[in-house]
Amino acid sequence: MEGAAATVMERCDILGRISEEPGRITRPYGSEAMRQVNDVVAGWMRASGMTVRQDAIGNLVGRYEGMGDKTLILGSHLDTVRDAGKYDGILGMMVALTCLERLHERGERLPFAIEVVGFADEEGLRFGTTYLGSSVFAGAFNPKLLSLKDANGVTLADAVRSFGGDPDGLVGNGRNAGELIGYCEVHIEQGPRLETHDLPIGIVSGIAGQSRIVVGFEGKADHAGTVPMEGRRDALCAAAEFVVEVEATARGEPGLVATVGEISVQPGASNVIPGEVDLSLDIRHQDDEVREQACQALRQRVEEIGAAREVVPRWHLRQEKRAVTFAPDLTALFEQAVGELGYPVERLPSGAGHDAAQMADLGPVAMLFVRCREGISHNPAESVRPEDVAVAIEVVNRFLELVAK
Amino acid sequence: MEGAAATVMERCDILGRISEEPGRITRPYGSEAMRQVNDVVAGWMRASGMTVRQDAIGNLVGRYEGMGDKTLILGSHLDTVRDAGKYDGILGMMVALTCLERLHERGERLPFAIEVVGFADEEGLRFGTTYLGSSVFAGAFNPKLLSLKDANGVTLADAVRSFGGDPDGLVGNGRNAGELIGYCEVHIEQGPRLETHDLPIGIVSGIAGQSRIVVGFEGKADHAGTVPMEGRRDALCAAAEFVVEVEATARGEPGLVATVGEISVQPGASNVIPGEVDLSLDIRHQDDEVREQACQALRQRVEEIGAAREVVPRWHLRQEKRAVTFAPDLTALFEQAVGELGYPVERLPSGAGHDAAQMADLGPVAMLFVRCREGISHNPAESVRPEDVAVAIEVVNRFLELVAK
Repeated sequence: MEGAAATVMERCDILGRISEEPGRITRPYGSEAMRQVNDVVAGWMRASGMTVRQDAIGNLVGRYEGMGDKTLILGSHLDTVRDAGKYDGILGMMVALTCLERLHERGERLPFAIEVVGFADEEGLRFGTTYLGSSVFAGAFNPKLLSLKDANGVTLADAVRSFGGDPDGLVGNGRNAGELIGYCEVHIEQGPRLETHDLPIGIVSGIAGQSRIVVGFEGKADHAGTVPMEGRRDALCAAAEFVVEVEATARGEPGLVATVGEISVQPGASNVIPGEVDLSLDIRHQDDEVREQACQALRQRVEEIGAAREVVPRWHLRQEKRAVTFAPDLTALFEQAVGELGYPVERLPSGAGHDAAQMADLGPVAMLFVRCREGISHNPAESVRPEDVAVAIEVVNRFLELVAK
Repeated sequence: MEGAAATVMERCDILGRISEEPGRITRPYGSEAMRQVNDVVAGWMRASGMTVRQDAIGNLVGRYEGMGDKTLILGSHLDTVRDAGKYDGILGMMVALTCLERLHERGERLPFAIEVVGFADEEGLRFGTTYLGSSVFAGAFNPKLLSLKDANGVTLADAVRSFGGDPDGLVGNGRNAGELIGYCEVHIEQGPRLETHDLPIGIVSGIAGQSRIVVGFEGKADHAGTVPMEGRRDALCAAAEFVVEVEATARGEPGLVATVGEISVQPGASNVIPGEVDLSLDIRHQDDEVREQACQALRQRVEEIGAAREVVPRWHLRQEKRAVTFAPDLTALFEQAVGELGYPVERLPSGAGHDAAQMADLGPVAMLFVRCREGISHNPAESVRPEDVAVAIEVVNRFLELVAK
């Protein structure tokens, strides 16, 4: 098993050297680096007895035939954010490949086929929209996105074409749900929970729902030296009071996370009382009702703060995603595998989005998290332990056996 | 008296049309607009029996001879901020001119000469440093500033030359203190106090001391979806707690004003927990001790917030100006003039800086504030009432008579 983990680590290193930017890992959709990565991974797929194709958007699909009609999908994504780590997405793909390699070496056929899918765009680095790859695979691609432009003015349609894909084939060519057993993904946790509990792996219960809101306060810009405190309508003081409330609200509700990540002040001069503030609010919870209640409570606080300070509040819901709960059957098999192998069974929700969230539209989904150092991701400091990777491989191997039963 | 106020209002309108930018008032130091304004005002000075000169930095100095050795200076500034109002600086100059005009029309000579000085740069719009004009006049110019560059890379030395001045003459050519009775300035309040108390004018007790501080919090940037609330080191939450404290501290101390006008967040993305925040802190009070105590208390709060949140605090004092208390004798004469004319005597500190603060280095200083609508300044909405201007003219005329006694 340790040999397989070593192979995974080595392959993550190899792919980490393929980038659009010297000295750091950056692989946007449709880039030359993505083409190279698809080529390299396709080679490994073929060496493991898989037939390989690229679909209309450039998702890399390796198929290992089985003895029945059904297909189990294993996968993750091959693109990255800018200045990324080596494991986000890649690790899950490499673990899947290794498990297939084992089957191939043993000449073993399961009662179902397995497809290993490397999605071409999960991070949305180039066009600002996530899950492009898995949305095509799941038959949920929105054709309005084809006119999106990247920073250089290239449309998604043109990017698809120059990546060897077919913009006209993105809609209606999703994988046939009836043929599928489900989709399983291994991924780094991107959070600190497994490390905190000293666990190599965890079973993901689902993906948190998310609300993205823009909150504004409009007060009155004034001279910082001449307007007494009681005469002020300071938009930043209102915003600060709100940020403190956001934190307190999230702290008071288990599992709730709420973040103000952006804030802008107008006019933004050290000697002028802030007249206007906009801030971003990101709220997530595994239970949609809890999230919606938190949103409602915070919206009311915005109104109250505005009224008390004679500052005009704004609340604009920019995006809302409902929570995804993973398939109980597949998840139970992961739990069984983990338990049989003697590891503690830890279930945890995912606060981050994954291709699995998109694939849940198509059929049953399950996910396994691997501990990552300090919960760091989207960063060159991303780090996983080979011992933990070995556990993940062992669990997926056992999981495949259990599905086969 | 109403004729004189009408003249002042009309002249403010005329000067308001002289600008570097179409459709709004912008008169940086050394600009063509400043040259035109100096020309127009010089014409009015000559028509009032004054001899006119420009000093080494381009301050416009009109002298009305008297019958003694001493000189009283009246003045304010002729430059503006970007997109300014018509009255900041200009009003005081126009009131002074009108009072001189009255003396000239009557053929009246006082037992002292009067110089009316229009300072060439108080706002610091072009080179980012205030009081350039009055610092030269007061003999306090710092020659290190000559190498400052404007947005186009022009040095202050070159700007002085092309404005017809002499960079080598900026130091050591201050007005001789021994010859002076003092400096008196009329200015719009730039705050709401006179309006709140329904008063046309007020007598300025002094200029508040000011501390400008940059406060920083360094936490840890993290994924907004995956890191639980209790594991966060959110720099913006720390900053928000501090902003709330700043406001509470200032509200709890009469006369204290404290403002956070700028805030910046790194990395500044809606789905990333803020790792680093910098903010500006501007604290002012008429009593230096009160201001220093407030700074000390807030600095301690920064440390406490940092310690409680495992966020590293920074406190950098960028600038500190001590409070200026105006000359009791001259101020008493203003009070006498106001009282004799039947207006309520209101004394108030200035939270904003003025040329008078710089001129206080040279000799006795006094100031008169004129009510401005809603306390608005540095804005095209700046507005004064002609009736209030008439009161200011009346008071300065009486003040001159009292000084003459």
